[in-house]
Amino acid sequence: MTEKKFIKALQGTRYEQPPFWLMRQAGRYLPEYRELRAKAGGFLDMVYNSEFATEVTMQPLRRFGMDAAILFSDILVIPHALGQKLEFVAGEGPKLDAIENAEGLVKLSEGNVDKVLQPVYDTVKNLRSQMVQEGMAGTALIGFAGAPWTVATYMVEGGGSKTFEKVKAFAYRDPVGFAQLIDIVTEATIHYLKKQIEAGAEAIQIFDSWAGVLDQDQFAQWVMVPTIKIVNAVKTAYPDVPVIGFPKGAGILYESYAQNTGVDAIGLDTQVPTKWAAEVLQPELPVQGNLDPVALLVGGDALEKEARRILEDLSEGPYVFNLGHGVIKETPPEHVGQLAKIIRGEA
Amino acid sequence: MTEKKFIKALQGTRYEQPPFWLMRQAGRYLPEYRELRAKAGGFLDMVYNSEFATEVTMQPLRRFGMDAAILFSDILVIPHALGQKLEFVAGEGPKLDAIENAEGLVKLSEGNVDKVLQPVYDTVKNLRSQMVQEGMAGTALIGFAGAPWTVATYMVEGGGSKTFEKVKAFAYRDPVGFAQLIDIVTEATIHYLKKQIEAGAEAIQIFDSWAGVLDQDQFAQWVMVPTIKIVNAVKTAYPDVPVIGFPKGAGILYESYAQNTGVDAIGLDTQVPTKWAAEVLQPELPVQGNLDPVALLVGGDALEKEARRILEDLSEGPYVFNLGHGVIKETPPEHVGQLAKIIRGEA
Repeated sequence: MTEKKFIKALQGTRYEQPPFWLMRQAGRYLPEYRELRAKAGGFLDMVYNSEFATEVTMQPLRRFGMDAAILFSDILVIPHALGQKLEFVAGEGPKLDAIENAEGLVKLSEGNVDKVLQPVYDTVKNLRSQMVQEGMAGTALIGFAGAPWTVATYMVEGGGSKTFEKVKAFAYRDPVGFAQLIDIVTEATIHYLKKQIEAGAEAIQIFDSWAGVLDQDQFAQWVMVPTIKIVNAVKTAYPDVPVIGFPKGAGILYESYAQNTGVDAIGLDTQVPTKWAAEVLQPELPVQGNLDPVALLVGGDALEKEARRILEDLSEGPYVFNLGHGVIKETPPEHVGQLAKIIRGEA
Repeated sequence: MTEKKFIKALQGTRYEQPPFWLMRQAGRYLPEYRELRAKAGGFLDMVYNSEFATEVTMQPLRRFGMDAAILFSDILVIPHALGQKLEFVAGEGPKLDAIENAEGLVKLSEGNVDKVLQPVYDTVKNLRSQMVQEGMAGTALIGFAGAPWTVATYMVEGGGSKTFEKVKAFAYRDPVGFAQLIDIVTEATIHYLKKQIEAGAEAIQIFDSWAGVLDQDQFAQWVMVPTIKIVNAVKTAYPDVPVIGFPKGAGILYESYAQNTGVDAIGLDTQVPTKWAAEVLQPELPVQGNLDPVALLVGGDALEKEARRILEDLSEGPYVFNLGHGVIKETPPEHVGQLAKIIRGEA
């Protein structure tokens, strides 16, 4: 049995000082990341270069000693591995060759998935030995993927979106065709997550960043159903590997997601009231979250006040401290240090 | 006592065929709007020209016979009337001369509020007589304002935002200074809403479009407290004028907002599950919403299915049909016609 605090928390152990990690803990707020990134070329070059990706994943652990590392990668490697053209334009985010209807599905093929993703599996493998080598035997390694709905939003919109008109219109106009897209992504995601676990990932997080833009029926169809499939397939193959679901923005539907998807733990966005989560969700499963990344950006008293309130509300049950969204790139690294001390009871 | 269906629904009457209006029903999806807009010059020119604003407000009523008109204006007239520089750049949205900290508050002054807003009051007055003149004696006129938190996001960010870093950072760093900003907006909003009612507005909607980006404590402080102040002041002066609160994205906090702000009715965004709303909110107060604007954009079977589901879930209690967000500008006007027939039981 594992003795890793992060894994045990996801299995239901309650800690006075909970384990912690931060979404986007490996990233642009760290000068050593920016330095490496400047050498690596583009963002995707970094993701597919195991040496770079391993190093970048390690960086925050060395400074702050998080209880978990998260593989440095991106949710859009799945459409990329399925053959969709993808590039990251500096300052503009991802650009994909949009698939706006069922006819566009011919662009996708499973044939090259493992070939494209092999460097990611290598990174996972390297990371496990690197972490031991650097004396982090108690630190767990998280693998991840985007949830099919969220990945599909990028595939159909051709990038980020504010209104999700194209992807929702596709789903409303042609639910059968859209279900095909979701199925293709779901199957590839199941394969991808299993391969990450085979390579050494000890827990999995499913990021559904845009779960909050759907009405209840669309949420059931495009968020719940594929998530249930993924969780079921992963847990059947690897029953001991905890799966964290993160249905960002799900609001009132957080409860249904927690009860019905089969996830072992649930990530809370900043908006979820922690008292409500302690009362309604935590008796069912461990929770993770949900400090406002802007409080971390600001630091000082505001950070301390927010972090202590969350710790107080959620530390009575099984809990992993995290943000409600990723670290903001302007965040001074010393604020992360301040937060780590607060969580560990050293400040 | 009024016999207007929309007002009676807000006062608790249940209708087999509920009254309806649509957020942004007067807007760019209508060719007659685009034609008038081309003549009017900029967006603000249109808002401050009573003749234009009256005509634009009337346009959708003539086509679709909504049960309520909503004054054609914008939530940013308040910062503008307080002296903050504002322009609408085509395709980019509003640009304001950002107030990033308490020192910036010197830019604001109440001195010219009524002078700047007089054309808006004139529009309200004109609309009441124009509606009677055109045989719409059963149609109610809604006045509105942005909630202070939402208005403050634009004032501090200098426009729209995806991350709300500046406004949240201001609130975390200097809660006293930020409270001053919120107070200035709150007082101006109370004055503005009272003047709209004096001029003839028969109901009020408070738009808190960005209520969903705050954690529970910040929500209590920056959404709840100012909303309570506004509702209390308006209801004290005009107890019979219903106030609709629309805390878009509030998720689990919808319940607390409905119970504690004193609003007469609550607007639901698309994400709020209608069955949950029927069970938890509607026994407390009338609800309004929440069709996905993309379903209206798509029309046909998808629109019919979504609209009928919502009608079924919410028509058992006091209810006003609406969207969960504004009409999308690419929406074919005939889809609004299709929706009107479904709501009226004519299709």
